[in-house]
Amino acid sequence: MAAQNKKAKGSNAERDLIHSFFAKGWVAIRSAGSGSQQNPSPDILAGNNLRRLAIECKAVCDTKKYFTKKEVDELVYFANKFGAEAWVAVRFDRIDWFFLNIEDLELKDKSYFVDVIIAKRKGLSFEQLIGQ
Amino acid sequence: MAAQNKKAKGSNAERDLIHSFFAKGWVAIRSAGSGSQQNPSPDILAGNNLRRLAIECKAVCDTKKYFTKKEVDELVYFANKFGAEAWVAVRFDRIDWFFLNIEDLELKDKSYFVDVIIAKRKGLSFEQLIGQ
Repeated sequence: MAAQNKKAKGSNAERDLIHSFFAKGWVAIRSAGSGSQQNPSPDILAGNNLRRLAIECKAVCDTKKYFTKKEVDELVYFANKFGAEAWVAVRFDRIDWFFLNIEDLELKDKSYFVDVIIAKRKGLSFEQLIGQ
Repeated sequence: MAAQNKKAKGSNAERDLIHSFFAKGWVAIRSAGSGSQQNPSPDILAGNNLRRLAIECKAVCDTKKYFTKKEVDELVYFANKFGAEAWVAVRFDRIDWFFLNIEDLELKDKSYFVDVIIAKRKGLSFEQLIGQ
């Protein structure tokens, strides 16, 4: 898939997630160009009076995904400053989002790794994430 | 000024503000296309362990600015859900940002109004906003 299409696919998937939060009475914000910023921010921040979530999102065509240590460290740093929980969201092709804690990712050669098997075993669905 | 230039000017001004937050040890996120979203979010969310700020930003070429009641209501709603303080930031041409509480805006014909005089009298500078 061309880079431009891939990017659009990622943005659309994130927009869907934003809608899902609002539909459940949460509020959420999608970051402007989080990947390219000098000052890193998670892709999505969501809140509902009680909880705040900082979420790094990846919609992938593959059955596995790596997150760099830098990405994960920046997510945790941001989340801590914000009083938010740090989450990684992965959407494999034609499968719904899975939400994982950092501890549920596998550390392999300085990268964090998740595949469909790990995601299905340890990941939460959107409804589980928001506690429904 | 053409609409496109105006938009770019606003985005650049917001990016400057994001940099300022990070330079002071805060983290901040800029919303992707907040103005055009179905699900409204503030232009900037910033946090520093202790405080969270939801900020609606306007960089204007004029000496006055109106915020619609809807804009302000949505800002307050979002901020409350997020446990954040609601702020309005206005940057008049060639003058620094002023940060105002909603109560400091003047309600005129169902719109909230601020001009340079009100901003200078009631607004905080960036350093004052972050408590320095």
